[in-house]
Amino acid sequence: MENQLPPSLSLGEIVDRLGGELIGDARITVRQVATLEKAMPDTIAFLANERYLGQLKTTRAGAVIVDARLGASLDMPRIVAANPYAYFARVSALFNPIPANAAGIHAAAVVHPLARLGTGVCVGAGAVIEEGAAVGDGCSIGAGVYLGAGVEVGEGSILHPNVTVYHGCTMGKRTIVHAGVVIGADGFGIAMDEGRWLKVPQIGRVRIGDDVEIGANTTIDRGAMEDTVIEDGVKLDNQIQVGHNVRIGAHTAIAACTGIAGSARIGRFCRIGGASGIAGHLTIADNVEISAHTLITKSINEAGTYTGAYPFENNRDWRRNAASLRNLGELTTRVRALEQALKPGKKGKK
Amino acid sequence: MENQLPPSLSLGEIVDRLGGELIGDARITVRQVATLEKAMPDTIAFLANERYLGQLKTTRAGAVIVDARLGASLDMPRIVAANPYAYFARVSALFNPIPANAAGIHAAAVVHPLARLGTGVCVGAGAVIEEGAAVGDGCSIGAGVYLGAGVEVGEGSILHPNVTVYHGCTMGKRTIVHAGVVIGADGFGIAMDEGRWLKVPQIGRVRIGDDVEIGANTTIDRGAMEDTVIEDGVKLDNQIQVGHNVRIGAHTAIAACTGIAGSARIGRFCRIGGASGIAGHLTIADNVEISAHTLITKSINEAGTYTGAYPFENNRDWRRNAASLRNLGELTTRVRALEQALKPGKKGKK
Amino acid sequence: MENQLPPSLSLGEIVDRLGGELIGDARITVRQVATLEKAMPDTIAFLANERYLGQLKTTRAGAVIVDARLGASLDMPRIVAANPYAYFARVSALFNPIPANAAGIHAAAVVHPLARLGTGVCVGAGAVIEEGAAVGDGCSIGAGVYLGAGVEVGEGSILHPNVTVYHGCTMGKRTIVHAGVVIGADGFGIAMDEGRWLKVPQIGRVRIGDDVEIGANTTIDRGAMEDTVIEDGVKLDNQIQVGHNVRIGAHTAIAACTGIAGSARIGRFCRIGGASGIAGHLTIADNVEISAHTLITKSINEAGTYTGAYPFENNRDWRRNAASLRNLGELTTRVRALEQALKPGKKGKK
Repeated sequence: MENQLPPSLSLGEIVDRLGGELIGDARITVRQVATLEKAMPDTIAFLANERYLGQLKTTRAGAVIVDARLGASLDMPRIVAANPYAYFARVSALFNPIPANAAGIHAAAVVHPLARLGTGVCVGAGAVIEEGAAVGDGCSIGAGVYLGAGVEVGEGSILHPNVTVYHGCTMGKRTIVHAGVVIGADGFGIAMDEGRWLKVPQIGRVRIGDDVEIGANTTIDRGAMEDTVIEDGVKLDNQIQVGHNVRIGAHTAIAACTGIAGSARIGRFCRIGGASGIAGHLTIADNVEISAHTLITKSINEAGTYTGAYPFENNRDWRRNAASLRNLGELTTRVRALEQALKPGKKGKK
Repeated sequence: MENQLPPSLSLGEIVDRLGGELIGDARITVRQVATLEKAMPDTIAFLANERYLGQLKTTRAGAVIVDARLGASLDMPRIVAANPYAYFARVSALFNPIPANAAGIHAAAVVHPLARLGTGVCVGAGAVIEEGAAVGDGCSIGAGVYLGAGVEVGEGSILHPNVTVYHGCTMGKRTIVHAGVVIGADGFGIAMDEGRWLKVPQIGRVRIGDDVEIGANTTIDRGAMEDTVIEDGVKLDNQIQVGHNVRIGAHTAIAACTGIAGSARIGRFCRIGGASGIAGHLTIADNVEISAHTLITKSINEAGTYTGAYPFENNRDWRRNAASLRNLGELTTRVRALEQALKPGKKGKK
Repeated sequence: MENQLPPSLSLGEIVDRLGGELIGDARITVRQVATLEKAMPDTIAFLANERYLGQLKTTRAGAVIVDARLGASLDMPRIVAANPYAYFARVSALFNPIPANAAGIHAAAVVHPLARLGTGVCVGAGAVIEEGAAVGDGCSIGAGVYLGAGVEVGEGSILHPNVTVYHGCTMGKRTIVHAGVVIGADGFGIAMDEGRWLKVPQIGRVRIGDDVEIGANTTIDRGAMEDTVIEDGVKLDNQIQVGHNVRIGAHTAIAACTGIAGSARIGRFCRIGGASGIAGHLTIADNVEISAHTLITKSINEAGTYTGAYPFENNRDWRRNAASLRNLGELTTRVRALEQALKPGKKGKK
């Protein structure tokens, strides 16, 4: 765990492995990443935002990762990289590899005899794997995880404790699913019939691509008839709700607490802010950015940034402005009347 | 599971069982439901919305369920029903019955000797059922479910894996509870006392009626003193939060991510959109419809549709409009001044 | 459980233990707390809000807790306290102590031999406690709880069923964690690199102080490099999301469904309404109150109440007002033009 001292690497070894231009003594060694503010001499920090430039003056970091422009004026040991944050992520991964769980099925796990487990699979205590489920090589299935009948998990995936995957759902390789996630629960399909809601059977599945990460307590519903689909490389934060039949395009990233209603289709490389909402049955183009707390009620056909949060203010001002907002349509009409009244030639008529 | 071929039914058999008017060859057989778009000749689709009329021309479905008006111009085999979506739900239930779990208590379940289980009950691996709990006939208690002391589950209910029900809570017949749901956690009752929050014991329970469905990771808090009540036929989507002492009237449906604050009383047959909020201690009449992302801050005494989401727009327009919104009260005052200035007889005075 | 008759106490015994001024017969006994509306003669109620004054006339409560002002006009047995709600909380705690679980490790729990458990610890069935974890005296670890390697839980804490705590996270004394909570999942750290998201290792932990309560299905992410910190006495309701590196100051209370983005710093004694949001990397001063459904996008340096929810209205009015809102910037410009046109001395020029 993080209390163990990671192995140290010299700056020379780092650029040998990851590229970038080293400026400074290649023999300097570091053993962990850190923030500029808290860095010690045996750590390496990064700067990707001018806002933190001031911290460079006081940082105790042994070295820093910067881009060419920000690095030009520095005199401390540094690695110059085109994308310092991505470079930093790679350095951090060197020092902090995902800990390998010991392979093996815990005695307190329950694996159906007709489930198929690959080689090097770890299954935690209390995990339940039902008939026909297939878990790929090197997967880690956490304690208390439930994999329903026929579930497929691609090789190298990690399911943290207490995840639930309903029958028939599939996920690709190197998927990471955090604790409390529920994949494949029934979508919200109900039909009103003579004063009672009828349940509409949800017979689709959830299909998740490769390299997807799903945050804690997120829920992804199974499709009503066709499948709910999460394409490759999608990154979902915590407590996101994905309704039935939704399709999320590859490499889209969605921040926490967002809700996506049924049958919405979201493009590739979108970035969706926290606690936003996407109404049902609409389409979002590729490369769309949606701000936090924004409800999207119509399809978006063009890349760009879209926003719809009420600006906060102190409560007294809000009270006044919100009350006026309730009469805004009327206010608009009144302004139009004033404009009419002031038009040349109109005055006399009035 | 859905990979198994369901039994086929002829259109004649379907109308024999479910009613409706068959127009076309009664011997045509179908074996599954499908969307118009993806239907194959051995499936039956439905049309409930004119928006999808165009898909009728190209569908390969063996038959379609429509209402009288939309069906009039068709020449493919069809079942005419007053409520095509509800009829479709019934057809789908014929082809997709909820799979019966094999009755029996898994060896890895932990059932207290003083818990009472009805006949034909299935208890999954790792489920824990505490003293005095009672589970009705034919219930399915999923893997990893926790039923606290004295919990009651009505007959024919299904609790999916990893559900937690705190002590003393009850639910009626045919209830469906999806994975990760928490029923009966303490309500948020705290009293500030000399700079420290005191916990107010939450001694009520949660009482849930018959035919309720609760979506994944939804939370329903126990009452502070009296009970939190979910009446018959209520349908809750995923990740809904229901505060202590709330009462939700029968047959109300609530979409995902909605939060209902403590002691709110919601009427019957309401429809509440996703990510909306109901403030505490207020009352919502029957048949109220609330739009997505709307915060209800006052009681609603009259049926109707209520809305309060900020309209989204591109970020540049939003910046301008939101900035103006912060001065809307003042703008209203300025318009009033203009109106005064233009009033006949006022001009001279100014 | 609550079905058992709690012991009764006389009003005299209550004021002996808790202080306050008793007006009435000290021998009157009560055995439970209740609301004014539902109280029976063997219960004691409270009144902290004038709004419920009318219920005093009809209550059947054996006694009532009030402040000096509201109590002045009463003639029923009463305890006068400076803070009736806090006094009530203490009375309720007398009648409703948290039930002590029988100490002991359930045979179906899995405790690593190198985990350390204090005295009087209860570990439920299916709980998993990993290597190096330390659980303090008198803790209750619920069924299905997962404590990762090196996790520390302070004495007297209660973790309800199906909680997940990732490796290395710590919590203080008397912490209460409700079912489904996830502590220490990876923060949402991703870096875009040539069309792919790289995962940024999340090597910080979550550190939680004493006397913290965390509501059901809330998620608190581990820090990216430094720790996410929840200070003493913080109270979090259900389904709250706390991003990586967040710090929440002591005795702050946050209502359900709120999302706090990464690296935000929230002051002490703040009160944050339900479903509100705090953007990342900003600072909220002490004693700030944030209304429900409000998104905070800038730091707040001054105590006070801040609000930003769209006022709801009936859908017809909303449509008109929201449409006008989309042109509000332009409307403001038009009003300015009208003002210019009406300025003395400008008329002729135009």
